[in-house]
This record gives sequence, C-alpha cells and structure tokens, in this order.
Amino acid sequence: MKILGIEHIGIATDNLDKDAPFWKLLLNNCEHISEEVKEQNVITEIFDTGRGKIELLEATSPESPIAKFIEKRGKGIHHICLEIDDIQQAINELIEAGVELIDKTPRIGIEGYMIVFIHPRSTGGVLVELAEKPEN
Amino acid sequence: MKILGIEHIGIATDNLDKDAPFWKLLLNNCEHISEEVKEQNVITEIFDTGRGKIELLEATSPESPIAKFIEKRGKGIHHICLEIDDIQQAINELIEAGVELIDKTPRIGIEGYMIVFIHPRSTGGVLVELAEKPEN
Repeated sequence: MKILGIEHIGIATDNLDKDAPFWKLLLNNCEHISEEVKEQNVITEIFDTGRGKIELLEATSPESPIAKFIEKRGKGIHHICLEIDDIQQAINELIEAGVELIDKTPRIGIEGYMIVFIHPRSTGGVLVELAEKPEN
Repeated sequence: MKILGIEHIGIATDNLDKDAPFWKLLLNNCEHISEEVKEQNVITEIFDTGRGKIELLEATSPESPIAKFIEKRGKGIHHICLEIDDIQQAINELIEAGVELIDKTPRIGIEGYMIVFIHPRSTGGVLVELAEKPEN
C-alpha cells in the first residue's frame, strides 16, 4: 500500500454557525464548499488548502457518529484521513498485520471517495480513515 | 495571510515503541526521521507523506505539554499545524480579529520553523499551530 498524502482532517462541531467563522478567516484563501452527507447524518464545511482539506462536521441527528463523539469527548478533531492508492490492497495488508478495521469492505464517503476506517485501538488513539479517489 | 497547506498532524503518545510500529506499517512509503526537541521535552517520529507530515510525540518529562495533554485527555491527536506564508502578518490579523493566541510572538519549533499556537477556545476545540518555513 502507498499513502499519497493527508486527504483531510475531520473536526467535530456542535455549531457550524459559531465555529465556521474562525476557519473562514484563517483559510480565506482556500476553496470552500458545503455538503450534506445524508448517510452519515452530517452537514460539512470543507476548505481545501491544496495540501489537505479541513472538514468541519456537524451532526444532523443524535444518531450521527459526530453527535456521539461530542457527547463522549467534546468537540474538536474527530479523525484524520489519508489518501491511499489502492484501498482493497490496504485492507488486505492491514488485516494480515492484525490491524483492527471498523469496516471490512470499502464504502462511499464524502466526495465519492472509497473509504475505510481503522479503529483507534490499533493506531494509538487516533481514528484513521483511508480514502481512494473515485477516478483511480 | 495565506495558508499554504497542512504542515503536520501532531499525535500524543505515551509509548513510541508501542505506537510507532502501526504508523511505520501504514506509512512505509514515506520518508521518516526521529528528532528530540529539548525545549519542548519531547521525542518525535516524523513521517512525511509529501502532502503533510504525521508527527508522533512522546514526552521526556512530566512537565512536557504532551504529558499534561495525555493526563487530561488520553493519547491521540494533539494538534494540527498549517503552513503560513507570513507568520507575523497572521499574528497581527488574528489579534485584530479577536482570536486568542497562546504565543504573542513567533518562536522556533521542530525543524526550525517559526511557530505560534492558537488557543482551542478560538477554534472550536482544536489546538492549531501556524508555521512559517525557515527559508521563507
């Protein structure tokens, strides 16, 4: 497997209206889009620095993983996402090495990427997402 | 101010020997160095993906910010660092906008960057480091 770079950093917020203005100020030179991801019950504000994105995530339902995370740990960084060349190969190699995956098969994430999450128990406390670009 | 990209993600660990092997496996194609930063009482393992670095940080003293963070929050992501074109200009603009900085003047960080930290109170719970490359 080959890591191509940091794809994004996911930040959990309970209030985009309150927290997004800081990031809009700091990342004012970055491309910026908003997207709702219904399967994950979140609305997002995504800023593209050109070398990794900052994704603000607000839950739209108490069932959202973001709502549960904030309840347990408070708001802040939720996960990091690394772009990978071949997600199926990565899954195979990680399982072979005894790494605990949350998903055993890739699913579709934000912006159409094929994604998989690695459990924080295997990473030293970090929720790690791997993502393969849809056009790969 | 102009953000040039995600410079690194800082991850707090209480045991590099235990936690580094996962990252070495995942980031096996990335350049990798170790560095001790005496002023911050940490030893680091730094992996460069080419689009942002992953920095594992272990405290060498109970006085280290990393030791204090782990005591309060547990191990995991400690901060994110964004590369900026002009750190003094960024400090001026952020103070002008009422953003709370931990440092009022830049100091020297890992790899000789000029750095400043923004307080999580101003960012929605994220410790944000800004860094200007030494050769800029």
